[in-house]
Amino acid sequence: MTTSHGKTHWFIPDGFIPPDSSGEMESHESICVLNCGETASRLTINAYFEDREPIEQFTYKVDAKRTKHIRTTWLKNEQEETIPKGVPYALEVISDVPVIIQYSRLDSTQKELALMTTLGYSAGS
Amino acid sequence: MTTSHGKTHWFIPDGFIPPDSSGEMESHESICVLNCGETASRLTINAYFEDREPIEQFTYKVDAKRTKHIRTTWLKNEQEETIPKGVPYALEVISDVPVIIQYSRLDSTQKELALMTTLGYSAGS
Amino acid sequence: MTTSHGKTHWFIPDGFIPPDSSGEMESHESICVLNCGETASRLTINAYFEDREPIEQFTYKVDAKRTKHIRTTWLKNEQEETIPKGVPYALEVISDVPVIIQYSRLDSTQKELALMTTLGYSAGS
Amino acid sequence: MTTSHGKTHWFIPDGFIPPDSSGEMESHESICVLNCGETASRLTINAYFEDREPIEQFTYKVDAKRTKHIRTTWLKNEQEETIPKGVPYALEVISDVPVIIQYSRLDSTQKELALMTTLGYSAGS
Repeated sequence: MTTSHGKTHWFIPDGFIPPDSSGEMESHESICVLNCGETASRLTINAYFEDREPIEQFTYKVDAKRTKHIRTTWLKNEQEETIPKGVPYALEVISDVPVIIQYSRLDSTQKELALMTTLGYSAGS
Repeated sequence: MTTSHGKTHWFIPDGFIPPDSSGEMESHESICVLNCGETASRLTINAYFEDREPIEQFTYKVDAKRTKHIRTTWLKNEQEETIPKGVPYALEVISDVPVIIQYSRLDSTQKELALMTTLGYSAGS
Repeated sequence: MTTSHGKTHWFIPDGFIPPDSSGEMESHESICVLNCGETASRLTINAYFEDREPIEQFTYKVDAKRTKHIRTTWLKNEQEETIPKGVPYALEVISDVPVIIQYSRLDSTQKELALMTTLGYSAGS
Repeated sequence: MTTSHGKTHWFIPDGFIPPDSSGEMESHESICVLNCGETASRLTINAYFEDREPIEQFTYKVDAKRTKHIRTTWLKNEQEETIPKGVPYALEVISDVPVIIQYSRLDSTQKELALMTTLGYSAGS
């Protein structure tokens, strides 16, 4: 329980922030990060698009022995760039310590929510 | 069919017990464990949070050649702690024998159910 | 494209045949098998339960260079046993040649369908 | 960030293009491809069926450092063949450079959308 687990490099090809919501639940995506090690994790997150250059160098910190369910709308890099809504994109997450990453989306564009989830694709050490 | 399969250490980064339900189906999460070996599995389950220390040492037993779909609301450790509803968290499951773990969530917060599922992330031997 | 791909041993911990349906779509589970090799695949499928002995030796054939989306309600073994509806269970699938297996469930218990899917957990050669 | 990641050979056993839609969202499937390398990826896509020969040699290009969320209804090979709607099938994707592939389906056959997603099964180098 006191050692780190997971990988340092993760990918999520199907990113999409639904622009609309209905009912009480807001449409959103989460990058769910588990850092069960003894050291805080510094994440670098890059977003790839279909027809423009990537938006790079979003950063986020997940403390030791903590999880963080990061909403993709929270991300803002030093150039104040954010991920646009309603656009197909993909995510790359690089961590300085091993972590485990799962991606989930709640879509309430039409009434009554829909959910989907998957582990990220992992690489690195 | 008579040998054990799977891994001894599993992680699920996206845990969340929906606090509300509607219709006939109650919102819930399940840790679905398959023990297809000849020996009962003793599970130790730890829950990680965003802004507090982990709740540790939930225990559960899955008999030999059995599955168990463990609802996360069933878990209670020796200190009588339980996993709070409506809070983002993550799960770590350690087994003394290899098992296979899939996580599923049914959310009926808004009318008409939503489902999501994924295999856990596995480590260990 | 002419060689086989995948594994010979697969597991799906979260099996459940929803007993009810509403609307036009019937609730069901599918074991989706892809055999992209040159040899037909003979599958042996076992079902594990929470509180009874496994039901074993369902068989199914998937031809060379074919897929088959096997509904779990179709399975019947030599003892005429079937998988009961409305009961948590788990699946083990053994193939004599490598295949790739994904599990999906459509639940229309409450109105408006819900979907979930995951790759199976693979072992074997 | 400047090296390629992923695998060159991917499989998705559960393909199905829902023939009907309701509400504002059209039912569809997407093969979500992330090419984070420096070289454009040339994809060859084959579709396997339950009771007929595969439809082969759909092609698609994903530029360097780009993602593409390919709708399966867009695919057309040199013989002008397309994937039929409402039929169970499976997908094989071969890339000349490593990529990462996730499959998602939005089904709005009955009112209110349903979502499911999974990483593809990867092989190759």
